[in-house]
Amino acid sequence: MIDTLLRREFPFASLKLLASARSAGTVIDVRGESIPVLEATPEAFEGVDIALFSAGGDVSLRLAPEAVKRGALVIDNTSAYRMAPEVPLVVPEVNAHEIFNHHGIIANPNCSTIQMMVALYPIYQVYGIRRIVVSTYQAASGAGQRAIEELKQTAAAILTGESPTASVLPVSKLEKHYPLAFNVLPQIDVFEANGYTKEEMKMVNETHKILADSRIQVTPTAVRVPVVYGHSEAVYVETEKPFVLEDVKNLLANSPGLILQDDPANQIYPQPLQAAGEFPVFVGRVRKDLFVENGLSLWVVADNILKGAALNAVQIAEIWVRQEGVL
Amino acid sequence: MIDTLLRREFPFASLKLLASARSAGTVIDVRGESIPVLEATPEAFEGVDIALFSAGGDVSLRLAPEAVKRGALVIDNTSAYRMAPEVPLVVPEVNAHEIFNHHGIIANPNCSTIQMMVALYPIYQVYGIRRIVVSTYQAASGAGQRAIEELKQTAAAILTGESPTASVLPVSKLEKHYPLAFNVLPQIDVFEANGYTKEEMKMVNETHKILADSRIQVTPTAVRVPVVYGHSEAVYVETEKPFVLEDVKNLLANSPGLILQDDPANQIYPQPLQAAGEFPVFVGRVRKDLFVENGLSLWVVADNILKGAALNAVQIAEIWVRQEGVL
Repeated sequence: MIDTLLRREFPFASLKLLASARSAGTVIDVRGESIPVLEATPEAFEGVDIALFSAGGDVSLRLAPEAVKRGALVIDNTSAYRMAPEVPLVVPEVNAHEIFNHHGIIANPNCSTIQMMVALYPIYQVYGIRRIVVSTYQAASGAGQRAIEELKQTAAAILTGESPTASVLPVSKLEKHYPLAFNVLPQIDVFEANGYTKEEMKMVNETHKILADSRIQVTPTAVRVPVVYGHSEAVYVETEKPFVLEDVKNLLANSPGLILQDDPANQIYPQPLQAAGEFPVFVGRVRKDLFVENGLSLWVVADNILKGAALNAVQIAEIWVRQEGVL
Repeated sequence: MIDTLLRREFPFASLKLLASARSAGTVIDVRGESIPVLEATPEAFEGVDIALFSAGGDVSLRLAPEAVKRGALVIDNTSAYRMAPEVPLVVPEVNAHEIFNHHGIIANPNCSTIQMMVALYPIYQVYGIRRIVVSTYQAASGAGQRAIEELKQTAAAILTGESPTASVLPVSKLEKHYPLAFNVLPQIDVFEANGYTKEEMKMVNETHKILADSRIQVTPTAVRVPVVYGHSEAVYVETEKPFVLEDVKNLLANSPGLILQDDPANQIYPQPLQAAGEFPVFVGRVRKDLFVENGLSLWVVADNILKGAALNAVQIAEIWVRQEGVL
């Protein structure tokens, strides 16, 4: 988050770093200035204009209202407020106007939803979208730093012929854990009663809310793969109106936040190892369905920590600041 | 292949091992007996009842007719004859009867098609299938031993902070190569003019041939993931007739070659690391679509080297031997 603020040259006058009592007291170097980490108490939000929350849903539920009470705009990276009717759920390339309808809190969508929305919104605007079938290839970093460490440890164990042990993935708070290295885990977050995971239901519900269109039929399968940074998605859509493939490619090549990497003859297509550390969403393998009228397949890759989290939040703050002249 | 023949206790009287001139001369230990590898010449097939081919399409095109001429039944693991009209394309759990329509050659389907067919055929029989949208998560072993080595080398390089180099994956004969470790590559085999890869077109064409039903709309995306053994597939189908979810699960639990691993509450679902070395196809995450009438999603995993190749070929030979009393 700090890194993204700096890379975007976000115009902050001062930066306050808040964390749990356990982490308070450490000092973080920001542009050569040593900034102490303070404990995130309600009072700590006094004088804060914009509060970027990213410390888990329970922390947001407890402290976001305190920050709002003290005059801050909260941009929340957790799922705590995403489906609250009065809270805008914003992907700037899609529904930036919603930023100005906030009541103190703006929610940042789930990483896998954000990149899909950036890729599909241009198509939605021009052709309409009736349905989406999406399979994800999600990176370990989406489950946090401990998941990254576990991926590396299990990979090293398998490479040296030891048997890998896991205690974090797929869901740290659940009972069973499986190694992700040289494996694929079809579970991200807990299961709901309908057989879908919470991650999958986020892709359904957040798509409906961001596009303000609950008619779209979304069929998700969310899968964790042994990648450190960068989520990939195989996305199939059916548009309402017919399309010419070249027109769709031109549209995607000229849409905000999106880079078209689609040249099969030269083996050019998005890859997570290449997208890691980058701000845009990358799209490729754009092709017409062989059988289904208005069927279209695409391959969408983005850095889940940047566009899927920190960057999207900072973009929201940028638009707010630019329009409101807050700072 | 040898290992599978032994594990299945295939009733062979003698085993002949053939390879290129380069590999000829090595000696392989089979059940304590030292068997020399001979050069695969046309004459080497004299006296052979069943010839299991797995040395690339060009070798099969050159030598399979020579083996047939000398009285052998050829079971071909390559793609050379799969779409030839007079050659049966067989998944024993689906169309074993085709084995007896051969004219000397029986083709073994592509690995990603085989496991999908084992999982979908019971559903196809009872409910009919109108369409399939499938995204694959395919292991490095599908691209051969050099691809496995490259996956391990690139993984080790990244873990030690070196930059990985690739010269095999995604397609060794093409110009560009990308590391697979901690990455995902949306290319398996070369691209065709329609934007689909050859691997994806195999899933379309072979599905039609095996089910003898070219009306099924197949939408594939084939992706290589950093796994050594075991292909996974996120499969969405639309059936012709309505279904009750529990009936589908019972059906899958009682179908040949298939093991239902579907207990989300206890985090039970198929994983490639668990399926590696096993003969069956594993299916889980079976769930009804949230919006689409007759929509069904499943997660299918199998060892691509066993059920996807050697086992399927040996099963074909077993059925032929059992019915014909050849040996």
